[in-house]
Amino acid sequence: MIEAAVDSAETTAQSVLDARLASLLLRHEVETFNAAYAAALDERRLSDWADMFTEDANYVVLSRENFDRNLPVGLIYCENKKMIRDRAFALQETAMFAPRYLRHLIGNLVMPREEREGALSARANYVVLQVLFDRPDAALHQVGVYHDVFRRVEGALKLAKRHCVYDNLLVPNALCIPV
Amino acid sequence: MIEAAVDSAETTAQSVLDARLASLLLRHEVETFNAAYAAALDERRLSDWADMFTEDANYVVLSRENFDRNLPVGLIYCENKKMIRDRAFALQETAMFAPRYLRHLIGNLVMPREEREGALSARANYVVLQVLFDRPDAALHQVGVYHDVFRRVEGALKLAKRHCVYDNLLVPNALCIPV
Amino acid sequence: MIEAAVDSAETTAQSVLDARLASLLLRHEVETFNAAYAAALDERRLSDWADMFTEDANYVVLSRENFDRNLPVGLIYCENKKMIRDRAFALQETAMFAPRYLRHLIGNLVMPREEREGALSARANYVVLQVLFDRPDAALHQVGVYHDVFRRVEGALKLAKRHCVYDNLLVPNALCIPV
Repeated sequence: MIEAAVDSAETTAQSVLDARLASLLLRHEVETFNAAYAAALDERRLSDWADMFTEDANYVVLSRENFDRNLPVGLIYCENKKMIRDRAFALQETAMFAPRYLRHLIGNLVMPREEREGALSARANYVVLQVLFDRPDAALHQVGVYHDVFRRVEGALKLAKRHCVYDNLLVPNALCIPV
Repeated sequence: MIEAAVDSAETTAQSVLDARLASLLLRHEVETFNAAYAAALDERRLSDWADMFTEDANYVVLSRENFDRNLPVGLIYCENKKMIRDRAFALQETAMFAPRYLRHLIGNLVMPREEREGALSARANYVVLQVLFDRPDAALHQVGVYHDVFRRVEGALKLAKRHCVYDNLLVPNALCIPV
Repeated sequence: MIEAAVDSAETTAQSVLDARLASLLLRHEVETFNAAYAAALDERRLSDWADMFTEDANYVVLSRENFDRNLPVGLIYCENKKMIRDRAFALQETAMFAPRYLRHLIGNLVMPREEREGALSARANYVVLQVLFDRPDAALHQVGVYHDVFRRVEGALKLAKRHCVYDNLLVPNALCIPV
């Protein structure tokens, strides 16, 4: 009897530890994903960026004002990977994206403890800093929060949804740049 | 004899791993806490924010200049949760907090390897970005470092102390906003 | 037979978990290192900062423009720890470093899954915020990315290489400050 109780207590302690580890590994995976996502955009590897979404992904960039009012109108609206890829190619062909450096910082990841039915929702704050080639200083280009849903495709995390809700936009002529 | 030595080596390796895992889980817990703390402030859930402190919590916002000189004088000084809650309610009633968006980034968490006597000290750098409703650009509102002591209350981490030591304040009329 | 298959499946699952944990612990170690690195600079403990490099460390601060063109010319160029230490002492003796506060945020860590031959390459984005003593506001001093190689010296991680590639420099007279 006593032995069984000890075993059971050990099993419970182990499963609590396993749950914490699973949660930690998941968080690690999303942080790694976000760092790779930022690097792809910072280094203008837009094709790599597009590949981080699922085929049916919903990618939207919209203002906090519209988001708070439940208006889905955004600066960028893509309802599948094809539209995301189109945007990436369009940007690489234009001069618009060229004469500036961008640098993302993503932090404050908030996520639930576990995946549910293969989907994982998460949020993270982001700051995009911009240096225009003809100015010496960096500026806050965009500040906001990602509302995400991740799904696994062949074992790897992909974005099924990323809504980038921005507090501001410093540079009006850069509206179409993905964040 | 050999078997015992192998067992002992394995036990040592296991306990080193366990110590590293414990340290990692603790760091994970504090990072998760800080992300939730930032989200509460960014989303103006000030009541949730107040609940992240212990009953006897000490919450102070003071300048780096005063901190370096050991002067405890701060912009905000709360010596228990009641005062923290009062401040939260006061802010929600005034218009002062309303016409702006805030966005926290918390990073560079520095913490010891283990809890001591149920208390855990930690530090983290923070940046608060602000968008005023009548201006299109984001600004650096406050930059600084948290000096924290966490304690467990019914299993969950709470702040027993958070001293927000700021390098600067961009916006003088926003002094009373918690960070 | 069945038992062996179950054992083997368990062993595989365990080794996958071990690999993910090892990767997580390594990431944790680098994040902890970077937070300590930032704290040393933010608190002007330049001697502690210099001690975070290996004896043969290569520490360079250079512009993204030069980096992209493979030009190694930088604002700071140190090819061993002695040169790094010289720079630290020089800065502590001059007034140049004094009349400002600096605050680092390091994020978006990108690193491979494992160490190779005792060396570990990594990248991370950084932002350095600066407050001059005669101005009330914080400014973006420098924005960029670290290109790192870590090596273990007596069990602890040290930087064998840190190339700080900056997108911009806001404050020309602060060029010589390490980041």
